[in-house]
Amino acid sequence: MRIALAQINTVVGDLDGNRDHILATLHEAEEGGADLACFPELSLCGYPPEDLLLKKDFLAACSESLEILAREVGDTAVLVGIPYLAEDIFNAAAIIHRGKVTAVYRKSFLPNYGVFDENRYFAAGEEGLVVKVAGVRVGITVCEDIWYAGGPVEAEVARGGAEVVVNISSSPYHRGKCGIRESLLQSRAADSMAIIAYVNCVGGQDELVFDGGSMILHPRRGKLAASPYFVEHILYCDVDTTGLWAQKMTRPIHRYMRQGALRRPVRVLELDGQRGPSQGERPHLPIQDIKELAQEEEVLQALLLGLRDYVRKNGFTDVMFGLSGGIDSALTAALAAMALGPEHVHGVFLPSRFTSQVSGEGTLSLVKALGISLETYDIDGILESYLGQVNASLQGPGRDVALENLQARIRGNVLMNISNSRGWLVLATGNKSELSMGYCTLYGDMAGGYAVIKDLLKSEVYRLSRFVNEREGREVIPSIILEREPSAELREGQKDSDSLPPYEVLDPILEDYIENGLTLDEMAGRGYDRELVEDVVRRVDANEYKRRQAPVGIKISPRAFGRDWRLPISVHRNRGS
Amino acid sequence: MRIALAQINTVVGDLDGNRDHILATLHEAEEGGADLACFPELSLCGYPPEDLLLKKDFLAACSESLEILAREVGDTAVLVGIPYLAEDIFNAAAIIHRGKVTAVYRKSFLPNYGVFDENRYFAAGEEGLVVKVAGVRVGITVCEDIWYAGGPVEAEVARGGAEVVVNISSSPYHRGKCGIRESLLQSRAADSMAIIAYVNCVGGQDELVFDGGSMILHPRRGKLAASPYFVEHILYCDVDTTGLWAQKMTRPIHRYMRQGALRRPVRVLELDGQRGPSQGERPHLPIQDIKELAQEEEVLQALLLGLRDYVRKNGFTDVMFGLSGGIDSALTAALAAMALGPEHVHGVFLPSRFTSQVSGEGTLSLVKALGISLETYDIDGILESYLGQVNASLQGPGRDVALENLQARIRGNVLMNISNSRGWLVLATGNKSELSMGYCTLYGDMAGGYAVIKDLLKSEVYRLSRFVNEREGREVIPSIILEREPSAELREGQKDSDSLPPYEVLDPILEDYIENGLTLDEMAGRGYDRELVEDVVRRVDANEYKRRQAPVGIKISPRAFGRDWRLPISVHRNRGS
Repeated sequence: MRIALAQINTVVGDLDGNRDHILATLHEAEEGGADLACFPELSLCGYPPEDLLLKKDFLAACSESLEILAREVGDTAVLVGIPYLAEDIFNAAAIIHRGKVTAVYRKSFLPNYGVFDENRYFAAGEEGLVVKVAGVRVGITVCEDIWYAGGPVEAEVARGGAEVVVNISSSPYHRGKCGIRESLLQSRAADSMAIIAYVNCVGGQDELVFDGGSMILHPRRGKLAASPYFVEHILYCDVDTTGLWAQKMTRPIHRYMRQGALRRPVRVLELDGQRGPSQGERPHLPIQDIKELAQEEEVLQALLLGLRDYVRKNGFTDVMFGLSGGIDSALTAALAAMALGPEHVHGVFLPSRFTSQVSGEGTLSLVKALGISLETYDIDGILESYLGQVNASLQGPGRDVALENLQARIRGNVLMNISNSRGWLVLATGNKSELSMGYCTLYGDMAGGYAVIKDLLKSEVYRLSRFVNEREGREVIPSIILEREPSAELREGQKDSDSLPPYEVLDPILEDYIENGLTLDEMAGRGYDRELVEDVVRRVDANEYKRRQAPVGIKISPRAFGRDWRLPISVHRNRGS
Repeated sequence: MRIALAQINTVVGDLDGNRDHILATLHEAEEGGADLACFPELSLCGYPPEDLLLKKDFLAACSESLEILAREVGDTAVLVGIPYLAEDIFNAAAIIHRGKVTAVYRKSFLPNYGVFDENRYFAAGEEGLVVKVAGVRVGITVCEDIWYAGGPVEAEVARGGAEVVVNISSSPYHRGKCGIRESLLQSRAADSMAIIAYVNCVGGQDELVFDGGSMILHPRRGKLAASPYFVEHILYCDVDTTGLWAQKMTRPIHRYMRQGALRRPVRVLELDGQRGPSQGERPHLPIQDIKELAQEEEVLQALLLGLRDYVRKNGFTDVMFGLSGGIDSALTAALAAMALGPEHVHGVFLPSRFTSQVSGEGTLSLVKALGISLETYDIDGILESYLGQVNASLQGPGRDVALENLQARIRGNVLMNISNSRGWLVLATGNKSELSMGYCTLYGDMAGGYAVIKDLLKSEVYRLSRFVNEREGREVIPSIILEREPSAELREGQKDSDSLPPYEVLDPILEDYIENGLTLDEMAGRGYDRELVEDVVRRVDANEYKRRQAPVGIKISPRAFGRDWRLPISVHRNRGS
């Protein structure tokens, strides 16, 4: 039995476009001699559709699109993810064969944590499904179904005799997740004594990036085949169940599961007269050598794909941003040039009296190294005009802060002028350390439609910048920028370290508090200064109001400031202490 | 049995403050001779705590606070809402009596739609609880538990013999919900043949307002007692179960439920030696005459409470906003003056060459009528300075739009100058019609920490403004403002109707699409012009990116642009057509 796992990039809501893309990929898989072609979770409508799922006409259009798709399906059976409206709404996988939707599997485990809200939309399925394809019993599961032991996978093996379990996923990326996922899938294969065929989607959607990384895992022989990460790909595998039965009998999990807690029914179905092309006629499968990505490369690819897809899927061609001569805007610029090509990338330098010479020099070398365009506007005259015309608006105990913010906002205005007059997307350049601590200006440096590096701590910004230089084998990001001390340059001689702990001290605390969810006691136990930790936590909590108005950006960490961070703005400030 | 329903206003995360407030209220209820004092859902920690519930130390602090509270509880039993960490996290109601937590009920129906994410945090309880208090069998439920027939209420009646069912809630307001809730509670009383004692919290929390409206309903005799809406209150009722048994026997739902699908176990518990003060010693209960609120009064109260609590709970004393001479900023000003007192309210008038005389006159009469302060800054000079200094940034096909937005952003900057230098909270003044259609400027008129009327359509803004004038018996909002044609005054002779359908045409479409969730076909069936509807829907969908950066504001409609609106930004634009 030859299986094809189609790791494709779809567009949320584009039912016609996604179906065309699925059909084109199916035809390729047919050429490739596949008996079964599998497409990701909800790939017919794009993932995650969020509240589109509450619209009755959207669900009806999805059903209609499935019917149209079915008419084009011949001998190569198709497994595709759809929202399925029956007695309730289900996150489903439809088996299509010879023009007909033969069966529909309903996802059972619905994630409702982190960035996921699936209980908001879906009811849970209660029945497994095993389909015999070219003589092989194939169990069907959707994403979360495979993440837990003793769940739908084992039920399909134990009660439906599945030899292969396909899992169609739309599993978003975060740093390190590729490795976690692979070891999890390997456990599931070993536990259930079934071959696992995992297909994930690829592409960016708002704050999420899907990394693909489809793979086929054997309970004993490990990874049989794998797709590359972050690109579209069809993964073929001739599923060989030889010896599986004997091995299964040496550790008969299926029998224990039957007598155990798992009472889930499983339906077994044989495709009508299904018969793939005989082995001899099929194209030979080349040996694939998929390299694991180094961590920095993984993060880099995620950022590039996330940015490229946000730009493309929202109909933009060009992006722009303020260049300050600092590391954050330099990395953002480098990422944009790599993602979109330098001819679509526009830097804007907005110096004031507080801008140092090194900022100008750094900006010029950066722009030259990247080959992007540069416009320069001095903002001092405009600042003077505010001071002359509306000086009274700046009177008060917070005048110094107000003046700093005003400079950032004038810069924001000029960027938005360019964006509004030319239709370019403004990228915000702030990092996660700043956004955590509120060391940023609403409507100033926070202005923009997309915030590429908002989920990278400052130390990660440095690490990735150095990696980009190494990878490219030249100073894409000039050392003059890499080596200077961080400063917002909003007053004479200002340094980040005037207002924040040094980043090498701050960032581990932020990571432990925000991403790892440690308590104050746990953090103190890790040797951080307790008073410092309390101060950091207080500032993170107090700046929720700023983050709530920040642009969306790419989730890279296990917990980003986006759908997976839902904290109140109004909250008692001394909660933690 | 005398029951006290304590409709209190708590602060999210303020465990000490909330406990003190509960204790003070309890002492009052003890004075009032209550056998049982009931406090709202999660009132010990404030509602909704959102992702605070994912913090282990927060949950531990809640448990600790419950223990401290318990020590102060004597003969008057207490029912209070807490997050409860056992084998999982539960949204629970603790029964406390004579220094001890006697039992904990776990909420069974967890709402995970609209603004609610309870599956994100809680596991569902599986057991009912009936407590005998002063000889009366009292069933315990939490909020959502009571919203559906054949659920926990009926189980406690059928299997635990409950005569009274208490429901502790934190049920957020939306327009018309008070009436819906009352008729629902009355059905539940009639269906189960039990007296329903419903206590809801009161107060504002970010985008939500809780309206209180606690009440006691008899299955046959209707409303026995009720709290006023939108204020703190203790509602007392001497629960009289006379005749209930006989009536129950004439329609023995409890027997059908026992033999029906409802197999839920219910635990029955008697409080140890519980004995309230004898009837004779207790203060006499005065007759309460609670008036239903007219719809406009209800909306007004919700806005005032929401604004007042956001300001107070976030540590502000004063608010400010731009006054344009238009109806939106005028209503916002009137609401702020009513909520906080005019001495804490500051208007800022920011005219340009496009500002008409009537805007200036209207602003002056408004400020005079309200008694709030006014500062005026002409923005033309600053605009000139942008045109002189950075004119090239405005070159492009979108120059006209960019110039309009720039004016709005200069105004935003001046407001933020004042806010940053003086510590006043900026209120954004935009309405829901604008925000739906994207007829507003990011970082311009959208700037602000709180958006008071963001969930009112333009026609509701007019309606409420007229209501405020009638209610106050004078022109709080001057007729010169009420009667002029809406304009953003960002270019010569501009009118809203140049860019938008007339509001009387637009608003019903927006209401049907956004709040009522109608499909295009359904809307066309209601007689709207199909092409117009398609255009409106397209514009609403396309402007999601703006709304994502909008400040939070008060939910008034069944579906506001907040936690209950989760649409993708990147979405295929022709989805609907």
